[in-house]
Amino acid sequence: MASYSPSARTRPTRAPQRVSYDRELVHCVLDEAVVSHVGFVVDGAPVVLPQLHARLDDVLYLHGSTGARALLAARDGLEVCVTVTLLDALVLARSAFHHSVNYRSVVVHGTATVVDDDEEKAAALAVLVEAIAPGRGAGTRPPTRKELAATTVLRLPLEEVSAKVRTGPPVDEDADLSLPYWAGVLPLRTVAGPPIPAPDLPTHIEVPDHVTAWRRPA
Amino acid sequence: MASYSPSARTRPTRAPQRVSYDRELVHCVLDEAVVSHVGFVVDGAPVVLPQLHARLDDVLYLHGSTGARALLAARDGLEVCVTVTLLDALVLARSAFHHSVNYRSVVVHGTATVVDDDEEKAAALAVLVEAIAPGRGAGTRPPTRKELAATTVLRLPLEEVSAKVRTGPPVDEDADLSLPYWAGVLPLRTVAGPPIPAPDLPTHIEVPDHVTAWRRPA
Repeated sequence: MASYSPSARTRPTRAPQRVSYDRELVHCVLDEAVVSHVGFVVDGAPVVLPQLHARLDDVLYLHGSTGARALLAARDGLEVCVTVTLLDALVLARSAFHHSVNYRSVVVHGTATVVDDDEEKAAALAVLVEAIAPGRGAGTRPPTRKELAATTVLRLPLEEVSAKVRTGPPVDEDADLSLPYWAGVLPLRTVAGPPIPAPDLPTHIEVPDHVTAWRRPA
Repeated sequence: MASYSPSARTRPTRAPQRVSYDRELVHCVLDEAVVSHVGFVVDGAPVVLPQLHARLDDVLYLHGSTGARALLAARDGLEVCVTVTLLDALVLARSAFHHSVNYRSVVVHGTATVVDDDEEKAAALAVLVEAIAPGRGAGTRPPTRKELAATTVLRLPLEEVSAKVRTGPPVDEDADLSLPYWAGVLPLRTVAGPPIPAPDLPTHIEVPDHVTAWRRPA
């Protein structure tokens, strides 16, 4: 499968040239983002919470550290919309009207369910740790049975999925091109600063490569 | 007013020490973030879309460039949840279980309405441009009457609002402190790369200070 199939919800109502169902693009965006935003409905009203997520093939795993109430309700399946946005650049046009941003975003619609199977839950936690810092899995203590039991992981199949991408320079009105204003793109990226060892870390433990080498995209 | 008032929805169900209603903190987080995620309900199901936003006193303005269908429905008021998340650091614990992130997030619940008043809409667009790049307003052509009419801006009063913050080192189990794993915090930040002039920019226009000086927090 090279692409996800469009649905009524993922078909664009505007700017169709920015929308894609390409599987590789969707996976790249999901994998590059550390944080996603999960939306669900409580008493008829929307709730949006930040979450850690990780992808394994065509499944998105959500870490149940926030919104515990809703996650428990998910035992019977929770209808969610998970959105991930990577901000790539500010787009500075001559006119206020044409200001924009370059970004890559992914929207996933579906029903999230609680992972009950211990083996799947352990695998999901492993990819969640790797999603935070690739290589980290080998540098940590794996979860005990008790910790596994205390963790809620949600499983969301990647089926109804779309990506949206804006790239390139500002698009100004012809009449504005001679205005005396600078126009262009200011690229943004997320960078890591120097690692800060935990205060209780024994001094002989050096910063491992998977920490010093952390970057996005990986 | 120094703080927002807690509501049933914004009162924490867990980790209460991380929750705040402090007005200055809420404003800082909203102002530092370029992108927010707006959630609303369509046919009973959640939808979450990335948006540009800007704050003016106790009002959050949302730029209606995406989700046009829902925004038009907002003429009668659209119940939304707008969430902003700033990722400050990866928190790398000895145990997989205690991995986390340091972050500052804000959740706003309320009813968004379309701004009809031309003067308010012009002011909202001005702060939206400033929210992308402070100082930019003086370096762009203001919107024409036609452009104003073609733009949808939503107004969301900051009333039911909460912030959530995690800071500091990983919190490991005592029994794990002597494990041979590095633990600590990897700070993350958003930085700007060299500005890229638009291909159609006259060569004599230099990059202005508000572009070279762009940083977050401002």
